[in-house]
Amino acid sequence: MIEEIIAWLVAAKEKILHAQNEQLTVAEKTNHKDLVTNMDREIQAFLINKIHSAYPQAKILAEEEGYNNLSDLSGQVFIIDPIDGTLNFVVQGENFCIMLAYYEDGVGQLGFIYDVMRDELYWGGKTIGVYKNDVKLPQPQDLPLDKGLVAINSYLFGHDRFNIHAIGEQSIGVRMCGCAGLELIAMLKGNHIGYISNLSPWDYAAGNVLLEEFGMRYSGFSGAPLSFSGREYYLAATPTAYATILDMLQLD
Amino acid sequence: MIEEIIAWLVAAKEKILHAQNEQLTVAEKTNHKDLVTNMDREIQAFLINKIHSAYPQAKILAEEEGYNNLSDLSGQVFIIDPIDGTLNFVVQGENFCIMLAYYEDGVGQLGFIYDVMRDELYWGGKTIGVYKNDVKLPQPQDLPLDKGLVAINSYLFGHDRFNIHAIGEQSIGVRMCGCAGLELIAMLKGNHIGYISNLSPWDYAAGNVLLEEFGMRYSGFSGAPLSFSGREYYLAATPTAYATILDMLQLD
Repeated sequence: MIEEIIAWLVAAKEKILHAQNEQLTVAEKTNHKDLVTNMDREIQAFLINKIHSAYPQAKILAEEEGYNNLSDLSGQVFIIDPIDGTLNFVVQGENFCIMLAYYEDGVGQLGFIYDVMRDELYWGGKTIGVYKNDVKLPQPQDLPLDKGLVAINSYLFGHDRFNIHAIGEQSIGVRMCGCAGLELIAMLKGNHIGYISNLSPWDYAAGNVLLEEFGMRYSGFSGAPLSFSGREYYLAATPTAYATILDMLQLD
Repeated sequence: MIEEIIAWLVAAKEKILHAQNEQLTVAEKTNHKDLVTNMDREIQAFLINKIHSAYPQAKILAEEEGYNNLSDLSGQVFIIDPIDGTLNFVVQGENFCIMLAYYEDGVGQLGFIYDVMRDELYWGGKTIGVYKNDVKLPQPQDLPLDKGLVAINSYLFGHDRFNIHAIGEQSIGVRMCGCAGLELIAMLKGNHIGYISNLSPWDYAAGNVLLEEFGMRYSGFSGAPLSFSGREYYLAATPTAYATILDMLQLD
């Protein structure tokens, strides 16, 4: 299954690279900062088609319309973000990812985060470990909050929701790049010790599988498991930083 | 002079890559988020030595001790940040730059921003244009604030100083990467339409030379020219976004 999924992702990358000389069709979803392009839709349709052919019994949860809700995670479930960081994709032409996760009865088995323009595929899964392309990544250090960089969603940081400003101040620095997949990659590389945001299931499904291989913690802001249903507050961090951040978060 | 400077920068890069297997010596300057390493000092000493040999009459303004103040910019002046983004250098091992600028009587002639780990040198100068390695960069579009991404210093954004939060909200997104050189590269590529921060002369000297080639605007928050003396508030943007941001900034 792993080689098959990697082949799909490489083919999806080729579609994106091939389309770069063509004009994108960009539409607003909820507002002028929430975009969807023809490529989001094409990549999603391409991956769904591959999954339907290879795993006809599997269920699919994916960002774009028609697939963005599932009543439960029983059985085989593929979770897809065809282009994570669509704003970056549109205005930068880089700093976006394709993400795909495979779950069984709600338990993450495989995760793939593909930084298309850098041609860096971060992937792995249960008992496999975490790889960047062909190279196995070392376990990041379990650094505390005050020894590491933390990525924070700009709305939460700018509005100082839930005492998040103090959390940023306690870290050695706050970063934001506009792409959940890249923020999760930064944790897998040991570049960042945490990520605090407001995410949908396709934003965190693949990353969580990989974080788990390294013993990283992730949950909602109360510490309760993520619902995989709609957008929700999301915290991931090294075990030590996770405990500190969870303690500092002040819920409404 | 250009080829000579590029040779110095490539040699400096080799020193950094060579030292990556060795233990860094990290010291705090003003606090635990303001670091200096032995490599900052070694790269600065290396570049200063090259400048002294080739241009003995030139003055030098540089980040680390002994060179961080100049009474005036008359004559030939080299301005150096040996490692811009030292925090990223220490904890990520990437996302930092070497920056070098050459000024004559206060007027920028040449600018160099070297993203060492990606091996991307952005350079250029008066009437030369702006290059990424060997490739001339196209003029970025003059996009307005509400059509582009803006990089904002985390302190200014987190504390909503000078109405900066509203400026971020009016843009399509706020980004922060912890390295002035990379934020300026993002403008040169057309990825970002502006950068709002609090910088020292070695943080903006090289970038300003390159921004100017593209007709970008830069100044302090009042619109007054930068002083090249100590840390000061800094705004750079496309002409259209610059006018909007300057109008929105609320000075104390």
